[in-house]
Order: sequence, then structure tokens, then C-alpha cells
Amino acid sequence: MTSSSLSPPEKLPIKRQVFHGTFVHCKNLTHLEILHDTYVFVDEHGVIVKILSGDGTGDARDLREDVGELGWDTDVDDEREIFEYVDSSKDEHEAHKNKKITNPINILLDTHIHAPQYPNSGLFGSSTLLNWLNTYTFPLEASLSALPKARAIYSRVIQRTLSHGTTTAAYYATIHVESTNLLADLCLQKGQRALVGRCCMDSDSGANPEYYRDDNPTQSLERTKECISHCENVDPDRKLITPILTPRFAPSCTPQLMCSLGEIARENDLPIQTHISENRSEIHWVKELFPECYSYTHVYDKYSCLTQKTILAHAVHIGEDEAALIRERGSGIAHCPVSNSALTSGMARVRWMIDRGLNVGLGTDVSGGFSASVLAAARESSFVSRCAAAWIGASENTNGKERDTLSVPEVLYLATRGGAKVVGMEDKIGGFEVGKVWDAQLIGLGTPLMYRKEGEWEGQEETHEVEVSPTGPVDIFGWENWDEKVAKWVFNGDDRNTMKVWVNGRLVHQRRN
Amino acid sequence: MTSSSLSPPEKLPIKRQVFHGTFVHCKNLTHLEILHDTYVFVDEHGVIVKILSGDGTGDARDLREDVGELGWDTDVDDEREIFEYVDSSKDEHEAHKNKKITNPINILLDTHIHAPQYPNSGLFGSSTLLNWLNTYTFPLEASLSALPKARAIYSRVIQRTLSHGTTTAAYYATIHVESTNLLADLCLQKGQRALVGRCCMDSDSGANPEYYRDDNPTQSLERTKECISHCENVDPDRKLITPILTPRFAPSCTPQLMCSLGEIARENDLPIQTHISENRSEIHWVKELFPECYSYTHVYDKYSCLTQKTILAHAVHIGEDEAALIRERGSGIAHCPVSNSALTSGMARVRWMIDRGLNVGLGTDVSGGFSASVLAAARESSFVSRCAAAWIGASENTNGKERDTLSVPEVLYLATRGGAKVVGMEDKIGGFEVGKVWDAQLIGLGTPLMYRKEGEWEGQEETHEVEVSPTGPVDIFGWENWDEKVAKWVFNGDDRNTMKVWVNGRLVHQRRN
Repeated sequence: MTSSSLSPPEKLPIKRQVFHGTFVHCKNLTHLEILHDTYVFVDEHGVIVKILSGDGTGDARDLREDVGELGWDTDVDDEREIFEYVDSSKDEHEAHKNKKITNPINILLDTHIHAPQYPNSGLFGSSTLLNWLNTYTFPLEASLSALPKARAIYSRVIQRTLSHGTTTAAYYATIHVESTNLLADLCLQKGQRALVGRCCMDSDSGANPEYYRDDNPTQSLERTKECISHCENVDPDRKLITPILTPRFAPSCTPQLMCSLGEIARENDLPIQTHISENRSEIHWVKELFPECYSYTHVYDKYSCLTQKTILAHAVHIGEDEAALIRERGSGIAHCPVSNSALTSGMARVRWMIDRGLNVGLGTDVSGGFSASVLAAARESSFVSRCAAAWIGASENTNGKERDTLSVPEVLYLATRGGAKVVGMEDKIGGFEVGKVWDAQLIGLGTPLMYRKEGEWEGQEETHEVEVSPTGPVDIFGWENWDEKVAKWVFNGDDRNTMKVWVNGRLVHQRRN
Repeated sequence: MTSSSLSPPEKLPIKRQVFHGTFVHCKNLTHLEILHDTYVFVDEHGVIVKILSGDGTGDARDLREDVGELGWDTDVDDEREIFEYVDSSKDEHEAHKNKKITNPINILLDTHIHAPQYPNSGLFGSSTLLNWLNTYTFPLEASLSALPKARAIYSRVIQRTLSHGTTTAAYYATIHVESTNLLADLCLQKGQRALVGRCCMDSDSGANPEYYRDDNPTQSLERTKECISHCENVDPDRKLITPILTPRFAPSCTPQLMCSLGEIARENDLPIQTHISENRSEIHWVKELFPECYSYTHVYDKYSCLTQKTILAHAVHIGEDEAALIRERGSGIAHCPVSNSALTSGMARVRWMIDRGLNVGLGTDVSGGFSASVLAAARESSFVSRCAAAWIGASENTNGKERDTLSVPEVLYLATRGGAKVVGMEDKIGGFEVGKVWDAQLIGLGTPLMYRKEGEWEGQEETHEVEVSPTGPVDIFGWENWDEKVAKWVFNGDDRNTMKVWVNGRLVHQRRN
């Protein structure tokens, strides 16, 4: 039904493209901008070079002058991609009855995902973090030393995340050099923008099982450098692949390793990713292991891992002092609500973080999170914010603070522009602007089920018949405005609505049919 | 892609059927029974008359003797439905590589859904109950006085819920007699088991808008009786359709109306459905409106609406005395976690309810809940229980009480046998047992992505290629046991996994392809 990785992108000819239709992206945290009848010009490097508004009629514009100004060949029309849409809230001619609604929405970014854990999606029982790691996670990760297994799993997780509209993913791999390099190769081949990190875990604190850990800091560093070199060899300009330093979490790393990783990060301008303050037992343990540090956050700071390019996953239980330090260092938070709910970790206070000036993006945290979809994470972030608000309200005997709940524009901001900031790519991706690259997905919402005829709403034939929409559970009846269409997609959408996905201007996933 | 309502079921010839395969149902709250290589015999009335185990090899059994004992024609073989499955954790022959996993799981029951609100799925903004009703709900419900609109919407919601595997739904309609009767007709035509209730709302307390309410208790009762008569005419034996008395919620009903409805319920052995204790402002309001009553629950009890056949939706904030009274009366709870999260109502304490001996089922509460899928409600009930457990744990500086979290078997129990009790049909539906009717769905989980060859795991070709499974986001790798397969379905499954749905032994939905 769906297809991805149409052809290794590096082998595809790059063409100049013009996209025409309705574009949805987040201007800022609270404002979802919906640009109708708009033209986006993308050059041969995948960069947006011009954005124009149509005349409001939706009629095709003569682009010869526009492309001439760009110095393009004026015969660009056959590269034009049109996103049709129909506004069925007006009385429509019969001819318009069956038009499909499609509109491109911005990229989706996954700021935290464990690629090797993908086969465990949905398997967590009633475990919490520390026993979950030992029961479900480490045995599976260890088994990815076998390359055929790694290849099958990594191929699948990249295809799946692309099919969910994930244009950029910050991946944790395993401790294995070869498998980690394979993950980078596969991302490059399938055309997904990725940060790829070998898991560093050298401590004998008890956090790492004997069968699955680096022997010592020196070995861990050497292995890590091998992976960095590999990424630099296959994609020297970091067009798609960025190596990322990945101390798993404080209990699994020696201070010596963390310091060295921080140093490499500084010398090579590399990002870092790790976990923080996910679960109360973990926090107690960190306190025991690093008694000299004021807090969990201060551990990473002391050992050079809290940089402007650090992605901190979870941060469910951080306190005021920690938030202040994270803000000062400019690190970002990967909020992983599905995982936090599944592993009974708690409800991260996203509004509280935003109020304190922290950058927040969304992570699926597969397989602590059961779903590889960032859209599912956006949905759950909205819900968790409401559960927390209601609970806080309980003590005040009110319905909770409305301000604490995250709106549709806000969760989409976290999934797009917020995520772009967290992975340090806000200049390149996160919205439709001149100078950014064309990372995007085309959302299809099917045919409206009803239409207005002489002022009355009537059902299309298929409303009564056997067919259930191939674009998933989203049902557009015809009278919804665009904000409502977007909300329907956020709450009921799935991979069936992701019709096409582009990264760096290249088509990397397309639904069949 | 999918189809439902293949043909009006009352016109279909009824045949005797034998189903063979793996059956999954809940024996009780904590025990998910998985019956392999099992035969279920369903007679011409749709009743299960015999259940047999195979010899464990999965080889087809000669059924002539078995059906002979039932007095059936022994030539039953061509009616036999086989659910193939493959256990790929063993080394398999090449020939088995591409076998699909299918297994029937029990019915899913929706104990609380507002059919007319379906077009608003996903639209709730940051509203809470009382402003949500006025902003989103009443205007849409009022517009269903137009029968063409009602027909289109009701057709769609029945098709959708069938496609999600909902074999039984307890529907709220609107105040309109004709539209409500149309809903009953459509359920009957499409073959869904349904409780259908006209909304009773006659109060001028401010709960009901002037443009959308019954004029007085007498009119409300008369209209209600018209709907009951209609249901009795079209389905006198309540084989599929049961009328249900539906006082909307205490603020929208006069005491006189509630008393009369309670009386009709008693005289005609009819169920009742209403809302209770969803939101704190609502609770305060009920206290103001009914100062003579000790609690919200006591309002319904005082006015004769708390019976053994009453379905109480939400019950998020009920106290000990209320739980005790509900238990004494034998009423059931429709737990609606998606709705409670979306409308910032709070987190219902399901474990607490179960500990107090209450019957609990699941409701989608469309469109307070955004999703028409009971599976989505089951998933969210698991998550809400974990959020609440973590929050409670916070005050104790622990990871929360594991006991408070709901397991996979438990949420499936709520969705099946628990729901059957709540709608008063536990003798008829809820599990695979002799004497119960054949209400079931067939779950397809696609082809395992990997297989074991000479002890090593290898990827099927499609793992690496362009195809993403048509059975949705559930990925079975091949090594999962059956409990794990079920968990994967619960957390990542959707309508793409619902291959077939039967009610009363009749096939009422079938996915194409």
C-alpha cells in the first residue's frame, strides 16, 4: 500500500520544482500559519528560493516571469506539483463533488528514537525504566551485533518513520560499530535526515549488563571515533547524516568517558544526546553514583556534556535549578510523552519548561514509546498536558489551568520548529521559508463526505455505501475550516494520510494508490 | 479498502458455521485465554453450540462425527472458516515463510458513544465539558433534525465503528424522534448490535439551549415512547436493537422526567444511560440544582434512574459513598479515557472502582473522545492508569503503585466482558462460550518480517523493500509469543487489523484485500 525509498536519493537526478497549494506550518509556538494558493520554488539543491502568493482564485499562475527572475529555465511547468483542494463549505458544482483534500504540512521531527528497539514496540508489560532496560531492551540491542538482523530491523524502522512523515530522526543505535555504521548507510540510502549515535556505555555501576557494554573508556572512545569517521566518509557535508555523541545515561557512563565525549563534541562541533530525569528510581540512583553533584543535570554539566547542541530526553522530574542550568547552556529537551506514559515515568510539565525558556521538541522514544509516529507523540503530549492540568486543578477544586494544556498549534510546533531547534538545525528546517530546505510531507484527507446543494447538506454516495476511506480514520464532512481540518488530522490521522515525503527536495516516500 | 454492511443482515440466509484457529478472549479480569487449534461450532441462530480442541498439530480434523452429534448435516466442511497461523519462532520451511498471522479475538463493546457528534471527532480546542457542549455539541446535534444529514452521519459512524471491531454500541442519538428511529433502522440494516436512546432533556436550568430541548416532561416522555415503540416494531425480540432510556445528565432533566423514565424502565425491563461526575464545574452545578441530594449519584438514585441496567458514563470524580451506592444498585460504569483526557476532565481511577466491586466497561464517548475506536480507548485507559499511578507515586517519591496500572489483559477485559456486563448482556456476549452468540472479529497481523534459518534470524525480502504492511503499524518480527502479539495489537493496532466482524453469527464487515 505504501512505498518508501523509491531509489537511493544520491543517485536521483535533482530537479528544480515548484509546489502550488495550501501550506501549513508553525510561525511560532502559538500561531499556525495556513498559506493558501501559494507557490514554493525549490532549487536543484533542495533549497527554497522563493515563496509567492497566488491571486486568491486558485487559478494556475503563469510562472515564466517568476522563474526567469530566478535565472531558471522558463519551461518549468512540467515540474510543477499541484495540491488541489476544495472548499466544500460553499455551494459547489457537481464537478467538484469528488475532489480530494490534500495539503502539505511541515516536516515532523523525531528528536529521540532507539532504532534497534523497534521490534519491541508495544512490549513493556507493567515494567518501569530500570527493569524494562534489563528485561526487554538490552537483550534485543545486544543481538544486533548480527548484521543481517540489524539490516532488517533498521530498514524497517527507517521505512516506518518515513511513512509516518518523520523527515529527521535523532537515532540511538547500539554499542556495535558495524551495525551503527549500517544504520547511517541505510538512512543515507533511504534519504532520511538523521543524527546517528553509537551508544556509549562503559560503566560497571550495574547499569550495563556484562554481556552488553564497552570494556573501558578508551575502547568506548575508539569505537565512537570509528563511527564518526564513517559518517564523515559517507556524507562529508552532513547533508543528511550527522554523527552524534551518545553517552547512554549517567549511570551507564564513567566520568572519564563523559569528559572525553564532551571534548570531542567541542573539537568537532558535534551534537550530544543522552537521557535525563526520566524516572524517580533512576534519579535516586544518579544521586548515589554521583554524590558530588547537586543534581542529575549538574552531572552532565560537570562532565562536559551539557552543550548548546545537547539533546536531553525526558526531563520529567527536573527542578527549577536544573531548568535554569539547561537554559543557560542552551541544551534542548526531547519530550517523549508516549514513553513516559507507557513506562509510568510521569507527566513532563511542558508548559513549565516553555515558561522557563527551554527548547522542547518531541520524541517517540521507540520502544519505551510504543509508536514510531511523531504525530502519535504530538497527540499524547496534548493529552498528558490535560491529565496534568486536571490533576493540578483537583487540589484547587477547579477544572485545571487551561493555560497548562497544549493546543493543536503548540503540539505541532513541538513536532516541527521546536524539534528543529532541539537538534540544532533551526536554520535549515522547521518551516517553509526562503533559505530553508524542502523537507515536507503531503497530507491527504480524502474526499469530503457531504456537500451543500441549494443550502442543504447532502451525503456523497459513498457516505452510505460500503467504502471506508483509504485515508484512515479522518473523516472530513465538508463544512470544516482549515484549522479544524488540521485538528482532525492531529487527533485521528495516521500514516495513511502521509501521501508523500520529501527530504532535501527529494521524494523519499510515497503512498501507493 | 474496507467494506461494511455487505447486505442487510435480516435478508441474508443463515448458515451453520465451524471456525477453526486461535481464539483469544478474557476468562476474567486478569486472565487472557488463548485457545490454539480450536473449533467453534455456530448454529443457524448465530449461537455457539460446541467448542472443541484439536490434536495440537493444527491439522484439519475430520468433523463428521462432531457435527453428527449436533444433529447437523455432516457436509459442513465448505462452511468451515480456517484461521491460519504460523509459529515462526521455530525453524520453518521455505513454504511457511510468507504465511500471514490471523487470529480471532473477542468482540469489542462501546458502552458510551454519541452518534450525532461523530463529525466533530477531533474538534474540542481547549474547551471543558460545559463550554464544549454549547460550542461544539448542541449546534451539531440540533442540525440532525434534517434526515438526509442524519442518514449520512449515522451511516458513517456505524460503518466506522464496525470497521474498528465494535460489535455492540450504546448510542445516544439526538432529541429528534425520526432521526433516532433512523439510527435504529441503520444499525439493524448494517447488522450492529446497538442500544439506541433518544436524548431526553427538558430542563430550563440553562443546561439545554432554547433551540434544542424538549418543551416539558410530558412531551419528552411521549417522544421517548415513540422511539421505544419503533425499536419494538423493527426488532421485537431485541435480537440486535434495544431501546435505552437516555436522560442526558442531571442538569438537563427535571426530576419529574427522571422519575417517569425510571418507571418506564422498570415496567418494560429497559436499560438507562446517562452521564455522571465528569467534570468539577458540572459537579458543583449539580449540587446547586439538587441541594436536597447528598451527591451526584444520589440524584439519580432519588429520581429512580439508578438501576441494575443503568450505564453511568465517566464517574471520574465519584467518592466512596457514591461507589458504595452504585455497587448496591448494580449499575455499570462506562469509562471514557480518551474523552476525559481531551476535555481535561481528569483521570478516572479504574483500579479503585474495580476494588470496590463496580462493573466497568469502555466507551469512546465520541466526540468528547476523538476516536471511534474502542481499541484506542483501551490503549488510553492503560496510559491514564499509568499517569495517575506516577502522579500518586510522586507524593510518595516512588515510581507509583504498579498495582494501579492496568495490564493488557485488563484493558481487553474492560473492552469485552466488562462492557458486556455494563450493557446487561453478559449472558449473551463477551467471550467464546457455549450458549453465547458468535459476536467476534478476526484480527490480521500480517506476515512476520523475519524467519529463522539454521538458528539465525533473517529478514524476509519485504523487510528491506518498498512495501509497508497493509495491516497497519503492527510489525510482527517472528519471535513474538502470543501474549506479545496481542500486546502489539493493543498498542499499535488499528482498523487495518480488523479483517472481519460478525454479529449474531453474521458477517457484517470485511476488509477488502
